[in-house]
Amino acid sequence: MAKVQMGPGTCIYPMPTLLVGANVDGKPNFMTVAWGNIANAEPPMTAVAIRANRHTRIGIEQNKTFSVNIPSADLVKEADYCGIASGARVDKVQACRFTVFYGKLGTAPMIEQCPINLECRVQHSLELGSHTLYIGRIEEVHASSDCLTEGRLDLDKVKPFAFMEEPSPAYYTLGELQGKAFSVGREIKSREQSD
Amino acid sequence: MAKVQMGPGTCIYPMPTLLVGANVDGKPNFMTVAWGNIANAEPPMTAVAIRANRHTRIGIEQNKTFSVNIPSADLVKEADYCGIASGARVDKVQACRFTVFYGKLGTAPMIEQCPINLECRVQHSLELGSHTLYIGRIEEVHASSDCLTEGRLDLDKVKPFAFMEEPSPAYYTLGELQGKAFSVGREIKSREQSD
Repeated sequence: MAKVQMGPGTCIYPMPTLLVGANVDGKPNFMTVAWGNIANAEPPMTAVAIRANRHTRIGIEQNKTFSVNIPSADLVKEADYCGIASGARVDKVQACRFTVFYGKLGTAPMIEQCPINLECRVQHSLELGSHTLYIGRIEEVHASSDCLTEGRLDLDKVKPFAFMEEPSPAYYTLGELQGKAFSVGREIKSREQSD
Repeated sequence: MAKVQMGPGTCIYPMPTLLVGANVDGKPNFMTVAWGNIANAEPPMTAVAIRANRHTRIGIEQNKTFSVNIPSADLVKEADYCGIASGARVDKVQACRFTVFYGKLGTAPMIEQCPINLECRVQHSLELGSHTLYIGRIEEVHASSDCLTEGRLDLDKVKPFAFMEEPSPAYYTLGELQGKAFSVGREIKSREQSD
């Protein structure tokens, strides 16, 4: 298969659609982030990349806390809006009609309408160029009770959605099941040759 | 909406399914990683979390280079296999029938069958506990020519897939379009009140 060199670029897919929250001068603000994921298991940590000029970044630096909120597909307009409006100019919480709550950290605002909320305390930050990578220890996970099945998170109810940039930037829910993890690959074991 | 405290946990969704490659003692090995994303735009960087005992990690430390390969849905068995087998015991390249190629870094093995391949040089590494977070500068992106439309990546052709843990761990392709990004949220602007 022929390969084409595209030059250095930011191509990882799929990406999540996340709303990162912080209190800026005591007032909650949220921004949309696609560049975030888990960074560590024990203890649980997340890593999110925030562009230097973002209003939310001021609040992360002020409090050394932030939140990661996972919107469901019925919040796609709000999630998109938080990526195109700036908290320096407008009150996004008011415009989106978000209900904000706080947890044990006290300064990491969270969105009640989002089914999953992570409360994070900044553990490390790396200035990488255009972005700061914040590594936050996840101190608590809050989940909406109607997104649980037998006490566990049920992603069929959460309905998180992905952000994809190509061919044109858009949001997608998840589609067809391709296979069970830690299972569908087992048939390749028959092809193994011991080293 | 009632919220339930789940305790600290690793809950970010959706996550990508990635194959991270490194040469261990000169031999290519690949592992499946869901905890990876972009960390910086200018210059392009990625961050991937690798558990301490993983065989691939030895190769990253030896060469300070690695690759991130994005499999398409027709490689779901191979992607799952690379997460359940260890390169310390078996030759995953042989078992998966991968064709390996190298780019400008020389030591970051890439999988020809994967439509997108990122060649990365380790810029930072953070020991966070159970995992090391490797921040790699993306030196080149290789794309399969049949996954381009008019010279640009076309994710409808790439068919990347997500990894979801709940209710049970599984892989999913992307589904329905929920809205165009930087567009669908504009209607909320009418609700703005200037601060």
